[in-house]
Amino acid sequence: MNSRPLLDRQRLYTIIFESDTPAGRRFDTALLVTILASLVVVMLDSIEGMHSQYRDLFNNLEWAFTALFALEYGLRLYCSPKPLGYAFSFFGLVDLLALLPAILALAFADAQYLLIVRVIRMIRIFRILKLRQYLSQANYLLIALRGSRQKIIVFLVSVSSLVTVFGALMYVIEGPAHGFTSIPTSIYWAVVTLTTVGFGDITPKTPLGQMVASLVMITGYSIIAVPTGIFTAELTNAMRQEGLLKHDCPHCKKHRHEANAAFCSRCGGPLFPRGLPDGKGD
Amino acid sequence: MNSRPLLDRQRLYTIIFESDTPAGRRFDTALLVTILASLVVVMLDSIEGMHSQYRDLFNNLEWAFTALFALEYGLRLYCSPKPLGYAFSFFGLVDLLALLPAILALAFADAQYLLIVRVIRMIRIFRILKLRQYLSQANYLLIALRGSRQKIIVFLVSVSSLVTVFGALMYVIEGPAHGFTSIPTSIYWAVVTLTTVGFGDITPKTPLGQMVASLVMITGYSIIAVPTGIFTAELTNAMRQEGLLKHDCPHCKKHRHEANAAFCSRCGGPLFPRGLPDGKGD
Amino acid sequence: MNSRPLLDRQRLYTIIFESDTPAGRRFDTALLVTILASLVVVMLDSIEGMHSQYRDLFNNLEWAFTALFALEYGLRLYCSPKPLGYAFSFFGLVDLLALLPAILALAFADAQYLLIVRVIRMIRIFRILKLRQYLSQANYLLIALRGSRQKIIVFLVSVSSLVTVFGALMYVIEGPAHGFTSIPTSIYWAVVTLTTVGFGDITPKTPLGQMVASLVMITGYSIIAVPTGIFTAELTNAMRQEGLLKHDCPHCKKHRHEANAAFCSRCGGPLFPRGLPDGKGD
Amino acid sequence: MNSRPLLDRQRLYTIIFESDTPAGRRFDTALLVTILASLVVVMLDSIEGMHSQYRDLFNNLEWAFTALFALEYGLRLYCSPKPLGYAFSFFGLVDLLALLPAILALAFADAQYLLIVRVIRMIRIFRILKLRQYLSQANYLLIALRGSRQKIIVFLVSVSSLVTVFGALMYVIEGPAHGFTSIPTSIYWAVVTLTTVGFGDITPKTPLGQMVASLVMITGYSIIAVPTGIFTAELTNAMRQEGLLKHDCPHCKKHRHEANAAFCSRCGGPLFPRGLPDGKGD
Repeated sequence: MNSRPLLDRQRLYTIIFESDTPAGRRFDTALLVTILASLVVVMLDSIEGMHSQYRDLFNNLEWAFTALFALEYGLRLYCSPKPLGYAFSFFGLVDLLALLPAILALAFADAQYLLIVRVIRMIRIFRILKLRQYLSQANYLLIALRGSRQKIIVFLVSVSSLVTVFGALMYVIEGPAHGFTSIPTSIYWAVVTLTTVGFGDITPKTPLGQMVASLVMITGYSIIAVPTGIFTAELTNAMRQEGLLKHDCPHCKKHRHEANAAFCSRCGGPLFPRGLPDGKGD
Repeated sequence: MNSRPLLDRQRLYTIIFESDTPAGRRFDTALLVTILASLVVVMLDSIEGMHSQYRDLFNNLEWAFTALFALEYGLRLYCSPKPLGYAFSFFGLVDLLALLPAILALAFADAQYLLIVRVIRMIRIFRILKLRQYLSQANYLLIALRGSRQKIIVFLVSVSSLVTVFGALMYVIEGPAHGFTSIPTSIYWAVVTLTTVGFGDITPKTPLGQMVASLVMITGYSIIAVPTGIFTAELTNAMRQEGLLKHDCPHCKKHRHEANAAFCSRCGGPLFPRGLPDGKGD
Repeated sequence: MNSRPLLDRQRLYTIIFESDTPAGRRFDTALLVTILASLVVVMLDSIEGMHSQYRDLFNNLEWAFTALFALEYGLRLYCSPKPLGYAFSFFGLVDLLALLPAILALAFADAQYLLIVRVIRMIRIFRILKLRQYLSQANYLLIALRGSRQKIIVFLVSVSSLVTVFGALMYVIEGPAHGFTSIPTSIYWAVVTLTTVGFGDITPKTPLGQMVASLVMITGYSIIAVPTGIFTAELTNAMRQEGLLKHDCPHCKKHRHEANAAFCSRCGGPLFPRGLPDGKGD
Repeated sequence: MNSRPLLDRQRLYTIIFESDTPAGRRFDTALLVTILASLVVVMLDSIEGMHSQYRDLFNNLEWAFTALFALEYGLRLYCSPKPLGYAFSFFGLVDLLALLPAILALAFADAQYLLIVRVIRMIRIFRILKLRQYLSQANYLLIALRGSRQKIIVFLVSVSSLVTVFGALMYVIEGPAHGFTSIPTSIYWAVVTLTTVGFGDITPKTPLGQMVASLVMITGYSIIAVPTGIFTAELTNAMRQEGLLKHDCPHCKKHRHEANAAFCSRCGGPLFPRGLPDGKGD
């Protein structure tokens, strides 16, 4: 408030960390565009024809983007009131992770390794998710997901058991001659089939194998109802919470009641005066 | 009412724009059949054997249909009380769009371009959707879609991030040798797999790749529950409010009542002041 | 009641048309087994190796089954109190349809035609559906389906428009060289892709085609929520009907009320005497 | 309590059958790890390269695991208060089933047979499912499944009829020349297509076949809504009743109340006779 540098820090903080001011919104938009551009460069660089022709250009661009993101990371540390708090927050760690691969690439020039580096860089795309107005909606989905977590795990364990048993069964029935070369491969086939993906790289050839495969498919087709049912029921539940009657009981002040309650379930008193037809109503 | 041409315009308007009179219904049916016929001609023309044999016939038919639709567009402009209002309405623009390609084809005789022209013509099929009795049902679906729009966008952004990360990961694991020729191609593979389509044109060959692919498939199989849950919850909500009387009880403010309710089911008070037979009733 | 033949008819009716008596149950079980056996014979006969070896055996068996079903059809007509009523009922027509192909095969010995004959015979499997105890559950599903019929049609029309537009678009983008040989074939591809089936017999090869295909897949993956949402909402609705309070209003005798109604919505009188704590309660 | 062996038995029982004590928990964890290890050995042994190199090692390991599980089975019989009760319980039979294949392998040295043996061993994975805290959630799913059982059977019978009719139809339309070699194979194709798996090993080639296939796909895409709707409606029902107080109001018979309700929200009467502080309260 009094010294210049402190004011700068505050203004920087508002611009970089918040998006309520025009400057803050402009900064966030520019950052998103830059991240997208760096992603496009990584993608184009992975195309053989592009890579051989524009190798140097892509290399320079990737370094330029890395420099920009490093500068941004430094500024965030500088203007944050609690630099350590930011550095160890979720977004702080993601921001750092987006820089590390490029630094590691200095020491290890192996091309193969560089590829992995690009993949980890991909996580930058999550920074695009800083969409204020959608956070409350995302929150809804998270509540429903958290509520259905245990049921989802039971479901996933059942599915894992199913694909293991079906995979081993198909290995015995069809065998290596028809593409089911090992139990792990057969389990992979069972996952492909149960989830109704159906690549078709491995397919049953014997009548018995096709019967078991039909069973796997109908099972997969039917039990997709389970995660859907779980999630829908949880989400309906989360959305119904608003359906409770919020009205202070005039006698005991209990605040939430069943949707159509006429009497308080705690003190038994009527929640509303009876609107008699011969009275002044209201 | 007094001059002939004005009466003609009115009658034309009733026939062309409305479908309550027998003539209007006949016009709409004829229009739908004509559009369908023009679609069939475009489709047949795209079949190699047909094209080489009946080239001229198809060409003439396409011109005949274009002339008919141009005439119809002119009549609509002529008989509309507000021609500009129609021209810039949704259906007005669609009607114009159905004509433009043929006109453009006059200047640019390039066959390749003509093909694109036919595609844009396809949008005519939406004119078939003018089904009066189903509009209220379509409206229902639109309300549910509008209510779930934000949640759907959060979902689509998450799916996009997932396929990008999984695509890059598979590019590194499998590499160009196994068909994952670039990151964009690998992202395409991830979309094919996550949505449980599973073409099988690109498939993982390494054990690690098959494990990651299994993860992608089970993820796709499980998260299909999310859009389904969102839409179902919204639609259930939209339908629960149907047929209910929306009127604040003057005594207890209960908002929704049975369709024919005279008294509030919570406080017993009359919902509406009594219209006495000897009073001003009504 | 008095003459023998009439009694026989009644007994036959009970055995053939009903399944409440032990004899009736035994007849129905035998019939189902016979139909299944005839189906198995048709299926085995369609396998090349089987057909060449056991041609005569299968032929004789098929004739034996046809004779049996003809006898059964005759008995049904004989013992039915209203033979015409049975003959034109749904099951009567299905029973006749199961005989016709074999009779037609007498006149037209063409093998190709015989194949079609076997297909129509397949409809016999629906006779297996005479499962008493499940009919009420099937009824539930039918109510939900009928309630959602209009919404389903709106959905199917939208899907048809989508696959037409996407099909034509892919035809222009990929063209005959990449397997999209005509607009109808491309529409077939769009159906395969939008419904997440994904045979992989036709796949996009160009980057732009893969982008549009990704869009089709994500669309198909998302809008599967629509029929599911519609049907779930209708079924939840159908099942909630039971949730209404069935209790005669002591004042006006109105029978159905909102689930938690305390007062009658028609006459405003309390539905239940107030259970005062100082009273005799109950 | 007095003799040593009895005490040992009790302690053993607590360790082996229960998981409330630290020792019991350690035993269960060790058991799960051992089962997983034995599964991994079976899987690795099925990979051709591994099998030829480490044949003896895998053989010995499998025998060691079998010995361990036999010892465990003996101990369970020994320490169980009712050995026969355990032996014929679900888990007792599964434990025995995990031993039998290895014993059978002694008499029949046929390698082919041994493969089947390994498959039956797979069922051991279900022992991993002894997850205490998730059982109540699994129970929820089971209640919903039991409630929807009849509707699911109606659905499965309808689907079976559909694939039979569609399969026979495609056999006639496409015929053996296009891969639809017999009616059973065509039914297999119909299952692959209706469940939206779509391997692509058999695909329609004729325009009519592609039209029927499109119909099968859109049917499969739409009716997936049915099991999902059934299960969701049942689960929502099961979850709505959770946490509610089930107790008939002594005055108006309202059945479900808020978890902590003292008075009925419909008639205001006390749900339970008042336990007066000066009375016998409780």
